[in-house]
Amino acid sequence: MIQVVKIGGNIVDDPEALDVFCQQFAKMEGPKLLVHGGGVMASHIQQSLGLKPIMVEGRRVTDKKTLNVVTMVYAGYCNKTIVALLQKYGCNALGLAGCDGGVIRARRRGPKTLSDGFTKMDFGFVGDVSPTSFNVPFIRNLLTHGIVPVFCPINHDGQGQLFNTNADTIAGSLAAALCAGLVYCFEKKGVLKDKDDDNSVIPSLDAETYTKLRLEGVIDKGMVPKLDNAFGALQKGASRVVIKHALDLLEDTGTVLK
Amino acid sequence: MIQVVKIGGNIVDDPEALDVFCQQFAKMEGPKLLVHGGGVMASHIQQSLGLKPIMVEGRRVTDKKTLNVVTMVYAGYCNKTIVALLQKYGCNALGLAGCDGGVIRARRRGPKTLSDGFTKMDFGFVGDVSPTSFNVPFIRNLLTHGIVPVFCPINHDGQGQLFNTNADTIAGSLAAALCAGLVYCFEKKGVLKDKDDDNSVIPSLDAETYTKLRLEGVIDKGMVPKLDNAFGALQKGASRVVIKHALDLLEDTGTVLK
Repeated sequence: MIQVVKIGGNIVDDPEALDVFCQQFAKMEGPKLLVHGGGVMASHIQQSLGLKPIMVEGRRVTDKKTLNVVTMVYAGYCNKTIVALLQKYGCNALGLAGCDGGVIRARRRGPKTLSDGFTKMDFGFVGDVSPTSFNVPFIRNLLTHGIVPVFCPINHDGQGQLFNTNADTIAGSLAAALCAGLVYCFEKKGVLKDKDDDNSVIPSLDAETYTKLRLEGVIDKGMVPKLDNAFGALQKGASRVVIKHALDLLEDTGTVLK
Repeated sequence: MIQVVKIGGNIVDDPEALDVFCQQFAKMEGPKLLVHGGGVMASHIQQSLGLKPIMVEGRRVTDKKTLNVVTMVYAGYCNKTIVALLQKYGCNALGLAGCDGGVIRARRRGPKTLSDGFTKMDFGFVGDVSPTSFNVPFIRNLLTHGIVPVFCPINHDGQGQLFNTNADTIAGSLAAALCAGLVYCFEKKGVLKDKDDDNSVIPSLDAETYTKLRLEGVIDKGMVPKLDNAFGALQKGASRVVIKHALDLLEDTGTVLK
């Protein structure tokens, strides 16, 4: 089974954890792909350049200058640091933004209605992807040649415009497009029954129980978009979805979605 | 014949010229590869971040923080901007740093003796490449699939360390490794007989005449490392070397080295 692994800022921003993760990822058997997010470095660089990071409901507002910063940080620093580490551990990684080989074509996100129900918000140069956005034959060809694609969350529209894209959505859509397994890595060992007890991992979770736990407030607000993405990937065709800690990659732990 | 084209900062830093260049490059027939330099953006970002760009004899001293900046700017911003533009013009470009697919493996440059003949200078995280640094089967495989590799001047040593590398040297070594034609693009229409007359292009130049013109001071100081690289590529196996203006790519102009 092809496996798609997604890591976020908690690993990308921590050189020691990233090194351990890359060692483990390199050891994973079978065809695999990695999707990484950006972490806080983009915000630090923005601030150093005198720009003010603007987040609305957890998502970055991406004007032209911000787009240049995230392109530098995600596609340049983060992507090449990860690829060079994976090469060190014997994994033939190849870094990709969506424009490379035309591997992903995104659509610019239109203005979104915020959670208040009426404010319309234009997030700027932000792209949306779906399972049909991927050049699947190209990806399968890379995998056949033993190459491990490493996706950063920068995409394009085919008309020369780059976009910032949500890495969770890329990973979910990619797994669905490839009918692959999906491993969402987080800072917790899985979905927790008690958010103050790291060992209270729910071993398996179906959509019905998820809705119930969300309504009861057992599942944390921050987990909701991630779990929505994860269940979405399962519905759209991912063969298996697991949520686990990034440093438990080789262990049979975490929450399996049903 | 495979063609390697090299562009530098004068094109990379100028959005309008870059757009015209990409249109022309997309129209070039046959298998082709692009190597780009970085331009002045890295220095601007360095300064904005409170770092001081240090150049010694035309080469950037690259400490850890400078390496992070050039990795962001060259592999992120410049590379993805170029790839997205080429995709717009129907050219299936794929951006590569040396670590991607293990395509180039560089060696850290040891301390160099400066032109005074005795000062030893350590340029920091700077890598050197030669025609044997390239994963030629991987590159040929990409070309066979109609993919156009676009190299930024960031490389690695296979041990997780990234390096800043001279883009002219990458282009020359790549052309030699592939026995390809090499087009070095400059801000001039070719090697000039009279540096104040842009139309005094020398149509062809052999190594003997080059040495003579250099000694006579006809060939500008700034051109010497570029021409040394170009003649080096020819000696090492490049099938043809032309020096021309980046926006004359499709025209039969410039200086052909013999």
